[in-house]
Amino acid sequence: MASENTRTRLLAAARQLFALHSFAGTSLQMIADRLGVTKAAVYHHFKTRDDILDAVIEPALAEMRAIIDDAEAQRGHAARAEHMIAGFVELTVRHRDLITLLSSDPGVLHALGERDSFADLLTRPLYVLTRDPEDPAERIRASMALSAIATTASSPMLTDVDDATMRETLTDTGRRILGLRRRTAH
Amino acid sequence: MASENTRTRLLAAARQLFALHSFAGTSLQMIADRLGVTKAAVYHHFKTRDDILDAVIEPALAEMRAIIDDAEAQRGHAARAEHMIAGFVELTVRHRDLITLLSSDPGVLHALGERDSFADLLTRPLYVLTRDPEDPAERIRASMALSAIATTASSPMLTDVDDATMRETLTDTGRRILGLRRRTAH
Repeated sequence: MASENTRTRLLAAARQLFALHSFAGTSLQMIADRLGVTKAAVYHHFKTRDDILDAVIEPALAEMRAIIDDAEAQRGHAARAEHMIAGFVELTVRHRDLITLLSSDPGVLHALGERDSFADLLTRPLYVLTRDPEDPAERIRASMALSAIATTASSPMLTDVDDATMRETLTDTGRRILGLRRRTAH
Repeated sequence: MASENTRTRLLAAARQLFALHSFAGTSLQMIADRLGVTKAAVYHHFKTRDDILDAVIEPALAEMRAIIDDAEAQRGHAARAEHMIAGFVELTVRHRDLITLLSSDPGVLHALGERDSFADLLTRPLYVLTRDPEDPAERIRASMALSAIATTASSPMLTDVDDATMRETLTDTGRRILGLRRRTAH
């Protein structure tokens, strides 16, 4: 079994086990057992469970940073908000299981909460969605749009809904929350 | 100190300590210290920490049940949805600290998750807000409305927003998410 392949399979197994048993409830031994390899084979790739968590979530966090950068670079509030909503919906729907882990696993929240860079990923999107950051109603609507998208994409009661329907309805409703006008085709 | 008065002060102190230190991180001794009474005085009212949690959250859960009952009793989908949104906003804004505790404290979630009656309080509002419970887009919008209201009312980034503004914006936006028409005055 090639080493790169093992690493990929290991991360996929860890992601499933974290979702099933929580981060705190998953041991390196359980990951090894799931793959049918020895614990030493897991150690070859990752020294600690924290290292595995980093490798599992870092690609999604990097995507989130890129989406925010892209949105912030747009001209005008409406274009920035449109990009933010579209990118955030795309990300949350693609990572439905990971969002559950990020938003509701106390062990993960604790690990993330200690990093400044993560707090940034929560506050910057709120600013992108508000025209006047002093206006309480705008701040409330920005919070509603982002929390509604993240919570609903990862809702255990909506796992039967297909990704395309989820994506379309989250985007339309996110835009409706913010009062963005429907763009004319051209 | 009258006994009923002690009980009321005890519950208020517990609520504050749960919010500060989490449910799992709050001991009966800490509650006694906060009030300047002996642990025996706390025991006189509550035998366990679970009993205190029950007494703290049960009034809000009872209010939630009454709101759902009232909404379900309305005639027509629009009236049911209007009542559900108005009641839920009123409840979440009045209990901003409690919603944080209910939605993000793992010890509380664990204690609540073991009761069938709590699962009901999560699913019945979703049904009240959907005209056709088989329509995925309607189910998505119902989930977005409720999660946006609960998460935003209790957001640590919006504690500076006054209750009236919070209530008004959550209600307007909740209605907008569901596509409810503005009622004409009469």
